[in-house]
Amino acid sequence: MQKINKCININEVDKEAKKDYIDRHSPFIHCDSTATAGEPFAVTVKMGSEYAHPDDFDHHIESVTLFDGEIKLAHTTFVPGILGNLKVNSTTTFTIVPTGKKLNLVAHGYCTKHGIWESIPVEVTVN
Amino acid sequence: MQKINKCININEVDKEAKKDYIDRHSPFIHCDSTATAGEPFAVTVKMGSEYAHPDDFDHHIESVTLFDGEIKLAHTTFVPGILGNLKVNSTTTFTIVPTGKKLNLVAHGYCTKHGIWESIPVEVTVN
Amino acid sequence: MQKINKCININEVDKEAKKDYIDRHSPFIHCDSTATAGEPFAVTVKMGSEYAHPDDFDHHIESVTLFDGEIKLAHTTFVPGILGNLKVNSTTTFTIVPTGKKLNLVAHGYCTKHGIWESIPVEVTVN
Amino acid sequence: MQKINKCININEVDKEAKKDYIDRHSPFIHCDSTATAGEPFAVTVKMGSEYAHPDDFDHHIESVTLFDGEIKLAHTTFVPGILGNLKVNSTTTFTIVPTGKKLNLVAHGYCTKHGIWESIPVEVTVN
Repeated sequence: MQKINKCININEVDKEAKKDYIDRHSPFIHCDSTATAGEPFAVTVKMGSEYAHPDDFDHHIESVTLFDGEIKLAHTTFVPGILGNLKVNSTTTFTIVPTGKKLNLVAHGYCTKHGIWESIPVEVTVN
Repeated sequence: MQKINKCININEVDKEAKKDYIDRHSPFIHCDSTATAGEPFAVTVKMGSEYAHPDDFDHHIESVTLFDGEIKLAHTTFVPGILGNLKVNSTTTFTIVPTGKKLNLVAHGYCTKHGIWESIPVEVTVN
Repeated sequence: MQKINKCININEVDKEAKKDYIDRHSPFIHCDSTATAGEPFAVTVKMGSEYAHPDDFDHHIESVTLFDGEIKLAHTTFVPGILGNLKVNSTTTFTIVPTGKKLNLVAHGYCTKHGIWESIPVEVTVN
Repeated sequence: MQKINKCININEVDKEAKKDYIDRHSPFIHCDSTATAGEPFAVTVKMGSEYAHPDDFDHHIESVTLFDGEIKLAHTTFVPGILGNLKVNSTTTFTIVPTGKKLNLVAHGYCTKHGIWESIPVEVTVN
């Protein structure tokens, strides 16, 4: 059975190497906590917060996917080298237009060596 | 041979229907005119400027792709309904880190009924 | 936390509607049980076995992904209507070249209404 | 303006190096010349015929796309290394269900160093 790695609070992690490993692989969702129905709403998915993943040809963040619950909204693939082969936080901003009562945003990031990583979900109230 | 539709200046187009058709299918690149080598640089691809494309299940903007010259940097696919099935300009912001002397940005948008459309290219000086 | 639906043996399921629902959403991997290192090896991912999923504009199999363990090998996206809007088992054959001692193949299928579904994994011995 | 490289008959090319370069980058469509409406129809897209492209981390066939005229049917992305980092013809078989009178199949292949390449189109009669 395939493993989906879940983001956890790295402040509760002892070892620096492990904090780095977990943080740089985890997608973080940045957006307002409320949205307006029928209006464009920006959602940013950033890989890592305090640490950044390498952008090497054989080891890079290949994609991020944004979901509302189980429903995929958008999926971005990246070519290695897009970040100059530097350790920079991959950052993508999607525009969505919510129509229901709330959004349950969750993101996946995919590393070509360490698989799928899932963000902490973010609930957005839609007015 | 497959047709790649090229964005043109709609101010030179007579008919409103044709202006609308061309504009809403054309990707437009929005970014600064200069970038700093080794630093993150935001590039926004927006579909349409004065008009917006439908977001219907059988007729929507399925993807945008960002290139530097002939080299693909990133590719985003969208699920129909992401824009609430409304006419809203699909907008995605990518982060890239330039390393050379200049960028020759060009974007493709893909409509599920009207094929591939190419943006006006944008040259960015990298310092 | 996002749900990854796992394929199960539908013969152990009582209700016909549930058998249909599970089967048509599950990817099945079809390939030889042994492969030769350095030689092309065909792997087919077929959605459903006894039942087939609809190919409607607002409800279709949008993609299949093939993994070796946690590592993504290939990802195919489908436009709705590719199967003539009929209930036909989506079938894609990938070619891979194994180099190690074994493959742990697993596939994901994605339905635009019912999310991600994971296949029964298939182990292939590489000689 | 972005260049879409078109496949040409390499027998009319003098230099071996150029034949190799053109052939290994060109997608070739392999399928029956007639199809039956409403029935599954297999279409194989193979990169190269007499030559094969490298599968290096910084230089590989990243994707193939199958179109019917201007309409995208399916798009497959490949992770470098899927072909064991060997020179092997990337081969993918899609299943489509035609409904009209004919198919105008065309494929794009994308090389991470040499851009988009378009196949010779293949017309299929649908009965």
